Amino acid sequence: MKFTIVGAGSSYTPELLAEMIVRRESLPVDELVLYDIDPHRLEIMEGFCKRYSEKRNFNIKIRSTKDLEDALYGASFVDTQIRVGGNIQRVKDEKIPLNYGLIGQETTGAGGMMKAFRTIPVMLEVAKHMEKASPNGWLINYTNPAGLVTEAVTRYTNANIAGFCSGGIFPKMWAKTSMGIDYNRVQYDYVGLNHLNFISNITIDGRPITEAEFDTLAETNDDVGLDIQKLLGCLTSPYLQYYYKTNQRTAELKDKKQTRGEYVQDLEKIVFAGYADPNNADIPEALFKRGGGGYSEVAMNFVNAVYNNIDTEMVVNVPNKGAVGFLPDDGVVEVNCLVNKRGMAPIHKSYVPEPCWGIISAVKNYEMLAVEAAVEGNVTKMKQALLAHPLVREYSIIEKLVPELLEGSKEYLPQFNK
Amino acid sequence: MKFTIVGAGSSYTPELLAEMIVRRESLPVDELVLYDIDPHRLEIMEGFCKRYSEKRNFNIKIRSTKDLEDALYGASFVDTQIRVGGNIQRVKDEKIPLNYGLIGQETTGAGGMMKAFRTIPVMLEVAKHMEKASPNGWLINYTNPAGLVTEAVTRYTNANIAGFCSGGIFPKMWAKTSMGIDYNRVQYDYVGLNHLNFISNITIDGRPITEAEFDTLAETNDDVGLDIQKLLGCLTSPYLQYYYKTNQRTAELKDKKQTRGEYVQDLEKIVFAGYADPNNADIPEALFKRGGGGYSEVAMNFVNAVYNNIDTEMVVNVPNKGAVGFLPDDGVVEVNCLVNKRGMAPIHKSYVPEPCWGIISAVKNYEMLAVEAAVEGNVTKMKQALLAHPLVREYSIIEKLVPELLEGSKEYLPQFNK
Amino acid sequence: MKFTIVGAGSSYTPELLAEMIVRRESLPVDELVLYDIDPHRLEIMEGFCKRYSEKRNFNIKIRSTKDLEDALYGASFVDTQIRVGGNIQRVKDEKIPLNYGLIGQETTGAGGMMKAFRTIPVMLEVAKHMEKASPNGWLINYTNPAGLVTEAVTRYTNANIAGFCSGGIFPKMWAKTSMGIDYNRVQYDYVGLNHLNFISNITIDGRPITEAEFDTLAETNDDVGLDIQKLLGCLTSPYLQYYYKTNQRTAELKDKKQTRGEYVQDLEKIVFAGYADPNNADIPEALFKRGGGGYSEVAMNFVNAVYNNIDTEMVVNVPNKGAVGFLPDDGVVEVNCLVNKRGMAPIHKSYVPEPCWGIISAVKNYEMLAVEAAVEGNVTKMKQALLAHPLVREYSIIEKLVPELLEGSKEYLPQFNK
Amino acid sequence: MKFTIVGAGSSYTPELLAEMIVRRESLPVDELVLYDIDPHRLEIMEGFCKRYSEKRNFNIKIRSTKDLEDALYGASFVDTQIRVGGNIQRVKDEKIPLNYGLIGQETTGAGGMMKAFRTIPVMLEVAKHMEKASPNGWLINYTNPAGLVTEAVTRYTNANIAGFCSGGIFPKMWAKTSMGIDYNRVQYDYVGLNHLNFISNITIDGRPITEAEFDTLAETNDDVGLDIQKLLGCLTSPYLQYYYKTNQRTAELKDKKQTRGEYVQDLEKIVFAGYADPNNADIPEALFKRGGGGYSEVAMNFVNAVYNNIDTEMVVNVPNKGAVGFLPDDGVVEVNCLVNKRGMAPIHKSYVPEPCWGIISAVKNYEMLAVEAAVEGNVTKMKQALLAHPLVREYSIIEKLVPELLEGSKEYLPQFNK
Repeated sequence: MKFTIVGAGSSYTPELLAEMIVRRESLPVDELVLYDIDPHRLEIMEGFCKRYSEKRNFNIKIRSTKDLEDALYGASFVDTQIRVGGNIQRVKDEKIPLNYGLIGQETTGAGGMMKAFRTIPVMLEVAKHMEKASPNGWLINYTNPAGLVTEAVTRYTNANIAGFCSGGIFPKMWAKTSMGIDYNRVQYDYVGLNHLNFISNITIDGRPITEAEFDTLAETNDDVGLDIQKLLGCLTSPYLQYYYKTNQRTAELKDKKQTRGEYVQDLEKIVFAGYADPNNADIPEALFKRGGGGYSEVAMNFVNAVYNNIDTEMVVNVPNKGAVGFLPDDGVVEVNCLVNKRGMAPIHKSYVPEPCWGIISAVKNYEMLAVEAAVEGNVTKMKQALLAHPLVREYSIIEKLVPELLEGSKEYLPQFNK
Repeated sequence: MKFTIVGAGSSYTPELLAEMIVRRESLPVDELVLYDIDPHRLEIMEGFCKRYSEKRNFNIKIRSTKDLEDALYGASFVDTQIRVGGNIQRVKDEKIPLNYGLIGQETTGAGGMMKAFRTIPVMLEVAKHMEKASPNGWLINYTNPAGLVTEAVTRYTNANIAGFCSGGIFPKMWAKTSMGIDYNRVQYDYVGLNHLNFISNITIDGRPITEAEFDTLAETNDDVGLDIQKLLGCLTSPYLQYYYKTNQRTAELKDKKQTRGEYVQDLEKIVFAGYADPNNADIPEALFKRGGGGYSEVAMNFVNAVYNNIDTEMVVNVPNKGAVGFLPDDGVVEVNCLVNKRGMAPIHKSYVPEPCWGIISAVKNYEMLAVEAAVEGNVTKMKQALLAHPLVREYSIIEKLVPELLEGSKEYLPQFNK
Repeated sequence: MKFTIVGAGSSYTPELLAEMIVRRESLPVDELVLYDIDPHRLEIMEGFCKRYSEKRNFNIKIRSTKDLEDALYGASFVDTQIRVGGNIQRVKDEKIPLNYGLIGQETTGAGGMMKAFRTIPVMLEVAKHMEKASPNGWLINYTNPAGLVTEAVTRYTNANIAGFCSGGIFPKMWAKTSMGIDYNRVQYDYVGLNHLNFISNITIDGRPITEAEFDTLAETNDDVGLDIQKLLGCLTSPYLQYYYKTNQRTAELKDKKQTRGEYVQDLEKIVFAGYADPNNADIPEALFKRGGGGYSEVAMNFVNAVYNNIDTEMVVNVPNKGAVGFLPDDGVVEVNCLVNKRGMAPIHKSYVPEPCWGIISAVKNYEMLAVEAAVEGNVTKMKQALLAHPLVREYSIIEKLVPELLEGSKEYLPQFNK
Repeated sequence: MKFTIVGAGSSYTPELLAEMIVRRESLPVDELVLYDIDPHRLEIMEGFCKRYSEKRNFNIKIRSTKDLEDALYGASFVDTQIRVGGNIQRVKDEKIPLNYGLIGQETTGAGGMMKAFRTIPVMLEVAKHMEKASPNGWLINYTNPAGLVTEAVTRYTNANIAGFCSGGIFPKMWAKTSMGIDYNRVQYDYVGLNHLNFISNITIDGRPITEAEFDTLAETNDDVGLDIQKLLGCLTSPYLQYYYKTNQRTAELKDKKQTRGEYVQDLEKIVFAGYADPNNADIPEALFKRGGGGYSEVAMNFVNAVYNNIDTEMVVNVPNKGAVGFLPDDGVVEVNCLVNKRGMAPIHKSYVPEPCWGIISAVKNYEMLAVEAAVEGNVTKMKQALLAHPLVREYSIIEKLVPELLEGSKEYLPQFNK
């Protein structure tokens, strides 16, 4: 089994490796190939990964490459965790919308759209290479905005893509944190779009949770908070804070001295110093302030289900094709799936919490237009997407915002500069 | 044919009478019954209607009654144009949301919801009476919010209701005004919800309109304006201004000295002085500043199609039942229908303008929750409805707004005071 | 207005002309162009049509042509009533299946499929010519099997086609015949496929018919009969006799000395003798034994609705696109439509009689496979179509039947002889 | 864990016990309760089961009861394998239709319908008891016709029912038999209704099977045969032989000296002699001629998935609710599901083999009418069901067949004798 990481210079790479070591008995990875366009980060990471493996007696071939074809050829699994334009662009995604009184955030709203615009051309390139170089391999995507990226790849290529987000196991994490309950005992119906999820019919050991347990979970998801989730009658993705507390969050973001992106830029310096230290073979503590925890576990759980053909229920981003009745067939949804060697098959959704289907449709409408805008480099569709987005919608703002957004990402948007 | 007007004290009543006179050859109305709970307005209107008919040699029995049973019994058509709580309540619907930075408007947003809450119990009473008193009669509803009222009646009674809005012929009006083209030459696909409509596939004499003609129509619909409609690729209801120009309109509403409701209150004094003048048999000029023109024509066009069994394409509010594929079956939609003696049957909609289906879903989600809240007197569903509404959504505002809204309409909300 | 008849050598042509004369005030046909590949029949028909018009003082330019391009160019309406291979082929469609114990009939079952295979290539040719020669013109199709032909044209060309069958007004005819009630007073929901229709919610003057009236109508549709229609709870197309009385009709067909096709061949000789008689300007009595009456009325009703932009409810074969929820989008259905200058728009169907939706699906499955087989010349799909057909389905028969059917129509199946 | 068998006098009971013994490590059954209305068979079976367990050192409490309440109370799993009226009635189901030239078979066609009519009232009684006596328990149904029984229970009770058929693992069996491949390596999409299934997208170790492998599997399913399955492009349930080889099978059934039911009656005597022998603790060889093998494995696989909360893909009969887009929501379908402690959730079906959806609809239409007829004792719906059934449909036969069928099962049809 050849396992390739595209964007291996990401600070998350060692966590994937750590998870491989945990599963060494069941997952015989032969070769780990690290690919990145940043030679400096790549070199650091290759060194660290080798030291990390050696210290843990994990005998596996680790090598880096700057040749995409080489990286992808014959790979069983290709994990992508890229950030086109790096954290510098992320900060723009956060700041530009905020100047117009809009949520500035790297996955949701106008900022998330720009991240999609920069990311999708690169991901389509990877996917199109894989169609030929590793047609039976799986592209495991964690790159945000994960729903838009997965939709672009499924609508415009024939590569096998599994789009993940650690959000799919958040309710398990909340139960673990707050009540000490193991992941496998907590189950639920998960419906919606990436970063726009609604979680209902929650069970522990197969029995419906009590009201008190619901409250405990909802409180643990404190970005959204108990009151809103109680009113909705379900748990939600933490990202719903940006929809139900828009004014409040916008005000807070304006007040902050640093955006999240700026904070991460600083943090990454510390983390990479740790990775670069030739005497260090442990993951730096600072990484855990980085967010995004849980993804490696999700990704390797998928690898396990596929490689060992073990039926496993997972939350995946997949083309809808009727699984959620009120959404278009070719739009990607994030729902419970059965995963095994055959890939993933969505569980049919016949229930969505009553107050939630409208907002799912509204955001999906935005997403589909944004994907088309991203692929075509179409400014009209870009504006339509923003008009359709519940967090933007104000026409007079869109007129001013669009040129500024395009200017800000200019060097990463070849499709708009044809 | 017995024709009854419920809420006959409305200043619009004479326009219905005028339209009956225009159609006197084809529509043999035997008796016009005026019903209202306001005896003063009712008396004025009865007097005026009699003078108006006499002057035009329209021999028809006109009488007023304060007995609802008497008014409805055996009626072929019952037109409802009520305003529960009068313009005093309207002003509250406009002002309370505005205090929280939200659009204050009598049909859309939180204000429209309160109007629905006051109106629906009264309309259900009328409809339930009709089930027995005039089971084959038609309830023609113009009372706003027309979509919510129609949905409540269709979901909770078996009365025959046809929910109309003059908006259904606005594109015809725009073509008439701007290009002098007769109504019957202008046709289009009309899709969405009451006051949330998108108009595409527009033809003149059966041929698609030119881009220049589109621009002319879009400019005439100046509340929304050319730019937005061009971007959407379709015409819209003027009410979309509140969605795509939310900030701008909110600011303007705040700056105005008078709300629309206050202006209308003043205007109505002038209009009613005209109606009350025993020497006057003409509709006062001031009425035409009142808005809502075109409804009488729509209503009587429906009466003509039904009474004379003439196939007629009209825009009607009807239960969806699959006509718009992405919306629930029991929600009411406002779409083109075939109307004749059998009532109305929706034309199937296989196309909705690309950037518009998400917002339709979002508002429909609000509407269905609001209808249930209105019927059940359910505060939780009321809050859910506001959380689902694109013009509200902010939880912290909802918490403060809800008690104030309920207090403001207290005496007209028996269902919430059980 | 240029009106073209393709297959003008058909004995039905004069009825279209007669209907034009009836509507001369409202439909100003300038030129009637007769096209056929049979020069003999064409000459006879041109002569007769001229005499017929002259006798009735109908001043219209009538001319014949053997040039398809000339016939179609700039035509507003092109009526097609062709029979590829003539009645000789029809007799084969009737006899070959019968040899295997199957219904032998020119529109239904294996026979109908062969008629489709011969007809569809010719109709596609006409439609593709029209795309260029008369892009705004309407192709009015009566050629059987009307559903399959319409589906082929709508799936594989961009021509405007309206597929009609006189069956759409049969319930009106039954009411006229049995109760003397005028067509316009009788209305109903018509759902299903061409020659596989179920008629419910029947009204006279807008009121539901009584049980006695239902019985009268059902008895008048005596090919199916009262008992079956009572059990189904709806009226049906007469062709349902072949589905619910399969054994009985098969036995009767076997016992007959002449097939219907052979009878018609004899009859046509008499009819054409009448047409050819230079002293005769009246439609021969014998024509009325021919069947198919009512089509001219339907066709010209469509022309009137379109030309004069008059909203008219008609039964038309149209692409489903969701109008009948349980059938595929690109399959053609025969349902009530609103017709006017914009063409036809299907009324949404939210009800199908309970015992009838399964058979509609089964036959539609056959139809879609048959259309693809017809266009592609695909023997596998041909066999799949027969396997899916409720009147065939027996695999061992299909294996023997298929080569015999293909042999029988060999010279008219270029697509199978590539 | 209390495990109850309703209809424990069935010759299949020991196989369930055998399977429990195989899984003794993972499934701690505390008590096995045997219930039957036939005291003689029950006594024999209790004795045999005890001897069988003892010989295999399986320490479990085994007891019999004639009290349904006692049998169901607190049961975790209730397996039903009843035959109302016994094999005597089965023989009637086989013979009566055959007299009219129709397939006579205990699960399909008119015979299957009568089995449903006798079984459904008994199963509803069990289910309604379970609603109270074991509300968290699972009713595992194997009783045929399994689809109709499951639909009746899900539409008319709130009991938890899982409807199984060994057919769900037939393709695995065929691969094992013909190619020696283990069950867990063979996977497929399974769609349709009980005994009307179509199996596509077949993989071995996650890779699509070759054409040669397809042929091998199709040949192994020899009741239908290679040719038909090749033409359909998928494997099928063996029961499709009755649909695609109707004439052939009807002729063969007529020629047989014994019906299957008569054969089984004879066989059961031998089998029960074995069970009754106080010196015998082994399952009699003769049982394996009985058919139905594999069910015990399926049933206990379900018990394992639920009890141990192990994600497991299984084929189950479940309410459709949109999983198969072209079928009604409340109809039961037999499709792949994810099973775990939460029960089963259907995998969404976005593909059905092209030539197969029509026949699925046709039979589902029959099934839904038959279930309603069974519950209501409604003769009209019974006739409608037969009219809708592809294997019956001929009205004149239905008229004669219906009274004879009702007479034949008279003593077991209380709902028709109200």
